Amino acid sequence: MMNIVLIGFMGTGKSEVGQKIAQVLGWQFIDTDALIEKRAMRSIPDIFKRYGESHFRGLERMVIRETAGLQDAVISTGGGAVINPENIKDLRKNGVLICLDASPKEIKSRVTDSERPLLKGKNQYQRIKHLLKVRKPYYEQSDATVKTTGRNIHSVVEEILQKAHRVQIDRIRVDLGKNSYDIKIGTSVLQRLGEQLAELGITKQVAIVTNPRIGKLYGHAVTQSLKRAGFVVRTMLVPDGERYKTLKWAVHLYENLLRYRFERGSCIVALGGGVIGDLAGFTAATYLRGIPYVQVPTTLAAQVDASIGGKTAVNHPMGKNLIGAFYQPRLVFIDTDVLKTLSKREYISGLAEVIKYGVIADAAFFKFLEDRMDEILNLEDTALRHAIQRSCEIKAAVVQRDEQEQGRRKVLNYGHTLGHAIEAVTHYKRYLHGEAVSIGMAFAARLAQGLGLCDDKTVRRQIRLMEQAGLPVFLPKLRIGDILNTIKLDKKVIGGAVYFVLADRIGRVVIRSVDQKKIMERLKKF
Amino acid sequence: MMNIVLIGFMGTGKSEVGQKIAQVLGWQFIDTDALIEKRAMRSIPDIFKRYGESHFRGLERMVIRETAGLQDAVISTGGGAVINPENIKDLRKNGVLICLDASPKEIKSRVTDSERPLLKGKNQYQRIKHLLKVRKPYYEQSDATVKTTGRNIHSVVEEILQKAHRVQIDRIRVDLGKNSYDIKIGTSVLQRLGEQLAELGITKQVAIVTNPRIGKLYGHAVTQSLKRAGFVVRTMLVPDGERYKTLKWAVHLYENLLRYRFERGSCIVALGGGVIGDLAGFTAATYLRGIPYVQVPTTLAAQVDASIGGKTAVNHPMGKNLIGAFYQPRLVFIDTDVLKTLSKREYISGLAEVIKYGVIADAAFFKFLEDRMDEILNLEDTALRHAIQRSCEIKAAVVQRDEQEQGRRKVLNYGHTLGHAIEAVTHYKRYLHGEAVSIGMAFAARLAQGLGLCDDKTVRRQIRLMEQAGLPVFLPKLRIGDILNTIKLDKKVIGGAVYFVLADRIGRVVIRSVDQKKIMERLKKF
Repeated sequence: MMNIVLIGFMGTGKSEVGQKIAQVLGWQFIDTDALIEKRAMRSIPDIFKRYGESHFRGLERMVIRETAGLQDAVISTGGGAVINPENIKDLRKNGVLICLDASPKEIKSRVTDSERPLLKGKNQYQRIKHLLKVRKPYYEQSDATVKTTGRNIHSVVEEILQKAHRVQIDRIRVDLGKNSYDIKIGTSVLQRLGEQLAELGITKQVAIVTNPRIGKLYGHAVTQSLKRAGFVVRTMLVPDGERYKTLKWAVHLYENLLRYRFERGSCIVALGGGVIGDLAGFTAATYLRGIPYVQVPTTLAAQVDASIGGKTAVNHPMGKNLIGAFYQPRLVFIDTDVLKTLSKREYISGLAEVIKYGVIADAAFFKFLEDRMDEILNLEDTALRHAIQRSCEIKAAVVQRDEQEQGRRKVLNYGHTLGHAIEAVTHYKRYLHGEAVSIGMAFAARLAQGLGLCDDKTVRRQIRLMEQAGLPVFLPKLRIGDILNTIKLDKKVIGGAVYFVLADRIGRVVIRSVDQKKIMERLKKF
Repeated sequence: MMNIVLIGFMGTGKSEVGQKIAQVLGWQFIDTDALIEKRAMRSIPDIFKRYGESHFRGLERMVIRETAGLQDAVISTGGGAVINPENIKDLRKNGVLICLDASPKEIKSRVTDSERPLLKGKNQYQRIKHLLKVRKPYYEQSDATVKTTGRNIHSVVEEILQKAHRVQIDRIRVDLGKNSYDIKIGTSVLQRLGEQLAELGITKQVAIVTNPRIGKLYGHAVTQSLKRAGFVVRTMLVPDGERYKTLKWAVHLYENLLRYRFERGSCIVALGGGVIGDLAGFTAATYLRGIPYVQVPTTLAAQVDASIGGKTAVNHPMGKNLIGAFYQPRLVFIDTDVLKTLSKREYISGLAEVIKYGVIADAAFFKFLEDRMDEILNLEDTALRHAIQRSCEIKAAVVQRDEQEQGRRKVLNYGHTLGHAIEAVTHYKRYLHGEAVSIGMAFAARLAQGLGLCDDKTVRRQIRLMEQAGLPVFLPKLRIGDILNTIKLDKKVIGGAVYFVLADRIGRVVIRSVDQKKIMERLKKF
């Protein structure tokens, strides 16, 4: 786990709270001011008086550089430590920054006894208020703020521990040789994107490609984070919707990139769902023969599926994703907190892919989903984080074995053979992708049973879980002939036979060519 | 070396000529008819009489399958062996097919004595003429035809050996892990493209992307070869010229590919110079997230440079090659014979890149070019083949070490810093690329000397060789300020410093950042 670093104004309780947290976690506690006094063998007022503030800041810089490198530490910092951006950078590397906040009045009551050098003289209350105002932007660099005014220490400590956990970043490696990258997952980590990009060795400029809706919700946080990390940020908007995932809009992005002189080392951040990810990824793949891009998916479907694996594309009037490239991102950065702004329907649609991973690869995960679906539907942190993380792990493992979809990667199409056909026959208007996939999975389950591949229980568990999630599992009233023709036009048809991914038990799938008559029969029953 | 397989009508002298060739080369000689007789322990007329022709063809098929696998063999075949396409396929795998041809009259005079089953009865002359006509398309599958009427055997043998040499294919491996591929080079090998593609495991359809001029010259030969190998061929024309290397024309190609339902395993053949190669390569890179493509370069510059290394792109009004991808071909197939239809100027322009390889990587090769430039200018086979092969080897070696131009690949830009600027300032109208590069190399040589990196002789040898080739080596009357500004706008400028590739001796280059004042000074002198 990352260190917990307490920042904030003097008198907000950093030392007292920090000691308590260290005690709870069994970690070491470091108070940087105390460490400076120990090293200098003088009190801080004395250092200020003898050598001035800048000398003190130099000592503070040294102590922070040193303590930032520790493991399992709670670090309480002096009120002014945040002013030097290098201090923040060091502390962030392995630490969660929690800012303690208190009212000026409370602060005044707590520091009356003290010899604080910066508050010496008259009008202490006014000086506190002024200094608080000046320091505000620095304190805003924290990962979270916790108010301490009028609260007992136990509730403050509890809130800090909870918030610190949310900023913890889990890491999944996608191992693709020189195209390898990390998927990083946290609960409330958008403001940490900048430092993540800085680690990748990206040069100066970053373009945030997003749509107006997402841009309004998260553009500011992402931009601020990137700016703090030293990047020059350009925001490039694409209208919201699948119909803008076109070559025309890729050209629009090329021209923006050219106007700002984006170079080979510059980076694109795709902030949005699958449409933004595919379009921005394709643009990155083809601008100057490829520049780095980072996926910041904001829908559940994009977080567990579309953002991982480097499938980029735009649509063509003759079909979806016909123009594209396999081009891996440099990082997939997932903040699960953004799912709170999704519509319920879109969120549930994404759960279809999550359930899919359980069926195709992991019976224990499927069981977990059965047990914890209510919590997941309520976006409860622990269950949701696990569901997303395990989904990403399974997708990463499949992609690793088959980067360019030559073979094994086809198992990810479980439920998609019929799902795609339903989407196409209903002109992509009636169902969200995940909803159609859900119906497709229900059908694939029954088809597998009909072929004697699996037992009734395997089918019932799948259908029950999808229903529990609120996903559709029945075929709508459509002409079966239309559906079959659409399946036959699909890429999954090789030499007249239709290939289906079928589960012979929960957690394991096989790829089978199925006779058209059998499909027809099964569709009619279904 | 590949086997030499003699095909052709009875009485054209295959056995006699074959024996002589085997003697000259010290190889084994196989007469398939004789071998059949030996195996069957009967004469051919006897086999025909007792079991009929189809039985004979079965025996012939077996014998050919067996002998085709031999090494260092001269194989003389029966006149009708060519009718079975399986025979041709087997013989081609490791053999050069030479068809011996003679006039009907000559044939008649040579077979009068015989008991040839197919010529029994009256009107022998008419039957020979008829059979010759029927067999013509089969004999046309040969790599070369040699007439024997009224010639002595020595001159026939000499011609065969010469022609067989021209069809020999040299192979250079470009080792890029799973993106690896071969560069294959021959003198007169276009008609062998089909079997090369068949070896790659390409599925049914192939699109030939070319321009009308090249299509007219070589489209037929390429199409026939692909058809013979069992491919369905679609030709897609793009107008001739750099200004058609655009996204718009890529879209035109996408739509053609979609119309013919090209799939992931289908293939694009880029038949043309750099423009066609770049455009077709980019289309292949981005259609259905990437389908196989094969480069068949028809200019010298494309053969030794553009076709190798997977740099694909289209132009944008704001600059050249701004939209593109690194996407390796599955094969680069070079027929040096096509260079004969290039204009002298375009051919010479390509020599600039050849000379560049000598300077940057191989002093012995540079010496070879000094010694043999006259032969190369006359397109004499041996010298030209070596020049192209060595150039391809050097390019392949550089690309192998740096597939995506992160570092070492920059040495290929020798002469290009100034060269690109000259092209841009003259709006790509006054100089061909190689001509501008030649001036750029002459300048880079003088700059290196001015910086004390190399001696006068190193400069003089470069300039002399370029002049010998007929390339320009002096800066035209242009405003030096314009040139410098263009260089500064180029991608090679990093943080204000201009990076130059400079030779400290023939065969070795370094990359140096050069002060703008020094460049200005040198440009004035130049």
